[in-house]
Amino acid sequence: MQNKHMLMIPGPTPVPERVLLAMAKHPIGHRSSDFSKVIGELTENLKWLHQTESDVLMLTVSGTGAMEAGIINFLSPGDRVLAADNGKFGERWVKLCKAFGLNVEVISSEWGKPLKKEDFQEKLEADKEKTIKAVIMTHSETSTGVINDLESISKIVKDHGEALLIVDAVTSLGATNVPVDKWGIDVVASGSQKGYMIPPGMGFVSVSKKAWKAYETAKIPRFYLDLGKYKKETDKNSSPYTTPVNLMYGLQAALQMMKEEGLEAIFERHQRLTQGTREAMKAMGLPLFGPDHCASPAVTAVAPTMDAEKLRSTLRKKFDIAVAGGQDHLKGQIFRIGHLGFVCERDLLTVIAALEATLLDLGYEGLNPGAGVAAAAKVFN
Amino acid sequence: MQNKHMLMIPGPTPVPERVLLAMAKHPIGHRSSDFSKVIGELTENLKWLHQTESDVLMLTVSGTGAMEAGIINFLSPGDRVLAADNGKFGERWVKLCKAFGLNVEVISSEWGKPLKKEDFQEKLEADKEKTIKAVIMTHSETSTGVINDLESISKIVKDHGEALLIVDAVTSLGATNVPVDKWGIDVVASGSQKGYMIPPGMGFVSVSKKAWKAYETAKIPRFYLDLGKYKKETDKNSSPYTTPVNLMYGLQAALQMMKEEGLEAIFERHQRLTQGTREAMKAMGLPLFGPDHCASPAVTAVAPTMDAEKLRSTLRKKFDIAVAGGQDHLKGQIFRIGHLGFVCERDLLTVIAALEATLLDLGYEGLNPGAGVAAAAKVFN
Repeated sequence: MQNKHMLMIPGPTPVPERVLLAMAKHPIGHRSSDFSKVIGELTENLKWLHQTESDVLMLTVSGTGAMEAGIINFLSPGDRVLAADNGKFGERWVKLCKAFGLNVEVISSEWGKPLKKEDFQEKLEADKEKTIKAVIMTHSETSTGVINDLESISKIVKDHGEALLIVDAVTSLGATNVPVDKWGIDVVASGSQKGYMIPPGMGFVSVSKKAWKAYETAKIPRFYLDLGKYKKETDKNSSPYTTPVNLMYGLQAALQMMKEEGLEAIFERHQRLTQGTREAMKAMGLPLFGPDHCASPAVTAVAPTMDAEKLRSTLRKKFDIAVAGGQDHLKGQIFRIGHLGFVCERDLLTVIAALEATLLDLGYEGLNPGAGVAAAAKVFN
Repeated sequence: MQNKHMLMIPGPTPVPERVLLAMAKHPIGHRSSDFSKVIGELTENLKWLHQTESDVLMLTVSGTGAMEAGIINFLSPGDRVLAADNGKFGERWVKLCKAFGLNVEVISSEWGKPLKKEDFQEKLEADKEKTIKAVIMTHSETSTGVINDLESISKIVKDHGEALLIVDAVTSLGATNVPVDKWGIDVVASGSQKGYMIPPGMGFVSVSKKAWKAYETAKIPRFYLDLGKYKKETDKNSSPYTTPVNLMYGLQAALQMMKEEGLEAIFERHQRLTQGTREAMKAMGLPLFGPDHCASPAVTAVAPTMDAEKLRSTLRKKFDIAVAGGQDHLKGQIFRIGHLGFVCERDLLTVIAALEATLLDLGYEGLNPGAGVAAAAKVFN
């Protein structure tokens, strides 16, 4: 059957009908007093989501645009920075730093393994002259399903005292606890098509007071992504450039839904979905790609003992469920189940049941039919 | 009566229900084969709209982001460029050039007056050494309702031979003839919330072969807006970063509607709307801000002999019609009626009738009640 599609990738994530219908309203002027109220409400609720008293700014960009804004506003060419790479998006941070002439030292772990806090500690403690201007990292690495220990690393950066902490929280924000002020994260970049439960098209950047101080002397040229302009206008419930009015209607509805559910409940739900998915994979005899202790709350990567692309396309053909494939050298080796945003236990039971049926059909070796659903149900109950 | 809003500003423009409903669909994966087909169709239709055989690239940005992409991909710090300023958006070009370290010479006309082609001719003919790398200008100046003579200026730039022609066609594309290849425009920046009839959130940049040649040596740092990456992926019906899936569903519907209407019919409609609006203002005794011979097809600026903001807010309160105000020093002096995109003759008759009623209520001196509607009707019939 066609047109009964089920989207289970780590972004775009499923969008609630309440959000879709909000987006289907006729736009109004982005400089009208009515829309000014919308900007004010969004700004307040974004601060709530980021657990910050400082600024959260809205940009018309994808997540990568938000990442770029997080770099070019606070650094100058030649600045020494540490950038962490343990997956596709960590790699993107490194490329971004190089594109803007930063003096980048890469801290890396193998894809599928978490970053080691000792690597940060070593570099930062050795930096007696305080020449390291920023530590740049990914929180939840979407490409591998690994979450890095941001809390511990943030403490090490705080001990250094000088370096800014710049974080890609694209698939952690709205899925797990990211208390921006408490952990002292200076810049957090995120995108709309993830925990926010709205379609792609918006990026968000939170900025600490310390980061604003760095902004004053940062010399990388910028115009469209100059966050100082966004702050000035956001403080007046306005925007420097035309805003994506309809996506913002959607964001308004989505943030209202998130507030109704509550941060704690959202985080617990994602935790439950993650654990249920992982227990199901183990029970079915499907090897997990990364270890449990650093499991992303957004996406679970699975490394079957068969061509992952064949499994993925069969699941798509038989049941019209989209899960993500592996990126770059992981293509064919892993598939990834998204459980981020507007996703509930029923969705995961569905995916696990369909995956079991697909594996049965493909004659997957070592499959224990029914075991996956049973294991997930045990976690969910 | 509330919630019967009528949007008559030069962007965001009214969005057809067909587009709104297309946008309200559940998103699918931006890397799926189904979405790849959408990208392919959009690219074809964007080329049709731009009347080009070269590339038209889609970005997740506002119009200003598209303008920035049009600069940073083709120029290097210190490059000598001519930038034209006869309004808010021309001024933005100048600011953009300065932000990226270009050696900018400004060609200006008073706000409300068109650019003089002789000013370009003089500079370009004097440049025997061919040191001018680009001529940068706005086609339809949204802030004043003036359209610049792009066709004549494009010929002068072509005679120079070296300089790229970089154009903001944000409120001319899809409203009047902009034959990109025929006129030899190297870079055209535009935004979704204008002639495209979709909400804000996307920017478009067309790139000529000559501009791609300049791209190879251009040295302004870039990453998110690096158009080379967009071309590479667009050629494979893909995208370098996550695309705004739902806005693109809307764009798909909007471009289909435009093709059904036909370019000639679209341009004639905008021409009719412009003329009808202008004749109505004259008949009502409302002075036009710019002369007829350079009237923008997107927006008509009117300079009443009373506080334009008071007139605007009364029209809003009495009839829930939004027209735009003046920007910067023109605030209070002019108001602007948008007649761009999904706008028909009936809409203009409505606005003119409501404006007459408002002026009557305000005791506007010299008003000739009924004359505006009659004059517009004469043009429309």
